[in-house]
Amino acid sequence: MPLPIRITFLGTAGSAPTKERNLPSVAIEYDGSTYLFDCGEGTQRQMSTYSLNPYRIKGIFITHIHGDHVIGLAGLVRTLALTKRTEPLYLFVPKGEESKVMPLLTFDRALISYKIIIKGVKSGEIFKGKGFSVMAFKLKHSIPTYGFAFKEDDRYRFDKEKSKRLGLKGDAFSKLVSRGSIKIRNKTIQLKDVAEKVMGRKVVYAADTRPAQTTIEAAKDAEILIHETTYTDEFRNLAKERLHSTAAEGATVAKNAKAKRLIIFHMSARYKSAEPLIKEAKKVFKNTTQAYDGMQITI
Amino acid sequence: MPLPIRITFLGTAGSAPTKERNLPSVAIEYDGSTYLFDCGEGTQRQMSTYSLNPYRIKGIFITHIHGDHVIGLAGLVRTLALTKRTEPLYLFVPKGEESKVMPLLTFDRALISYKIIIKGVKSGEIFKGKGFSVMAFKLKHSIPTYGFAFKEDDRYRFDKEKSKRLGLKGDAFSKLVSRGSIKIRNKTIQLKDVAEKVMGRKVVYAADTRPAQTTIEAAKDAEILIHETTYTDEFRNLAKERLHSTAAEGATVAKNAKAKRLIIFHMSARYKSAEPLIKEAKKVFKNTTQAYDGMQITI
Repeated sequence: MPLPIRITFLGTAGSAPTKERNLPSVAIEYDGSTYLFDCGEGTQRQMSTYSLNPYRIKGIFITHIHGDHVIGLAGLVRTLALTKRTEPLYLFVPKGEESKVMPLLTFDRALISYKIIIKGVKSGEIFKGKGFSVMAFKLKHSIPTYGFAFKEDDRYRFDKEKSKRLGLKGDAFSKLVSRGSIKIRNKTIQLKDVAEKVMGRKVVYAADTRPAQTTIEAAKDAEILIHETTYTDEFRNLAKERLHSTAAEGATVAKNAKAKRLIIFHMSARYKSAEPLIKEAKKVFKNTTQAYDGMQITI
Repeated sequence: MPLPIRITFLGTAGSAPTKERNLPSVAIEYDGSTYLFDCGEGTQRQMSTYSLNPYRIKGIFITHIHGDHVIGLAGLVRTLALTKRTEPLYLFVPKGEESKVMPLLTFDRALISYKIIIKGVKSGEIFKGKGFSVMAFKLKHSIPTYGFAFKEDDRYRFDKEKSKRLGLKGDAFSKLVSRGSIKIRNKTIQLKDVAEKVMGRKVVYAADTRPAQTTIEAAKDAEILIHETTYTDEFRNLAKERLHSTAAEGATVAKNAKAKRLIIFHMSARYKSAEPLIKEAKKVFKNTTQAYDGMQITI
């Protein structure tokens, strides 16, 4: 059985926080560890509000170095040091932007009890965990920006009957998966004859960005695409100018990617309610939900 | 009639935020302007939660450059720029610590639409507003730290009958106040004979600190002393070691200063309830209140 992937929306606002919405951050919990995607101001408190343990964070993936997506790092790394954490923390930022994030970690010369390993992100696989990997893909924003795909490893579902008949047991299964074929009782067994490939589930996070072909490719058949939609179509020129997406544009990306579900977030503070955004997106892509702070989805 | 001074506790936690308490910040509203004392992470959102307009902020007074008291500046100064503020913002930090706060303002090279005027704080009057001033006084903490006294100007209450009889009118009142005496109808009038001096109200903010003689002096007869009390007496050695105060110590400062009221805050996250702190403080100084996030007092 695949492990649950739990997604928690810690912050769903646009560039300024509101009473109801904190600045962007999405947590993915998998196999006892937590990974953050963006870390807006107040993320550590949101974790406590929604009962996520910050000490379980293994890696933080920052899309781009705009204040509203990154300032929460400053407080979080210091709080993690309060209990003398020793486990290293992986911090991913767009390649070339490392020097912009450093001041948030070092400004007051605080003693950090653990290593913060900063990795410059380029397109492709950037992190390999047990049973999953994280891929980065380029986005279209005013400064270097990457989206991220959290992807479970593909796995093989073996035909029990057939496997037994052919004498497969013990580590023969994993050998067969890694090699593609093995010999048992002088007979060559092909993986594809005895097992069916099951694609790993994929959760894709894209902010801040114009609609992009790279997102469509990364979100191909994804269980969930989380896409920023800052404006409604009425402000499509503003969206272009400021390099954000409208609700219709985000929904079109989901549709073209054949994603199973779209979650939109990062709405401009001009909207008192998410209603116009969700209405607009649903016209293009029916299975759309507007994220709210504290929303949790387990797949 | 004196103008109301409204105090809002935006954050009352110790070094890490909790579900109930955000990191330290106290707002004082006076005559249409807002002044912040400390600016922990999430302060801008707390302002929106408790319906304070961040665009009214004129000055921010930072006690010391420890992350939990200062990180909120990073997001706040950027949000203030979103609406193209042009009015300068005064930012007070302990003298010599200016270079530590700068990275929070500049890390991502964001365009700030207004001037941030950074002033290095030493003991004495550091800001003069219309009808009030702010004084700084040294505190005892692990790095350079100052407390602040928000003090209304002293004023004079004139005896109406006597003033009329002596022929005082128009700008003669203000002339008499500034000079101490004036001549009317060839007769010298002494200020003290016709008016009674009314001391301006004082609100004093002291965090983070050991109990200090400087606080006692600054809080002399204050309407309100806001003092950190991180621990109960049980942890008095920890308080000494980490240069914080116990509830009993904070209360002793209030008692020795003959303050009218003590508000304690900044409690360690080890306390699930403020009960033990408030109980301990009240034994020493009866008129003590434990601050909570959103608590407002108008004097």
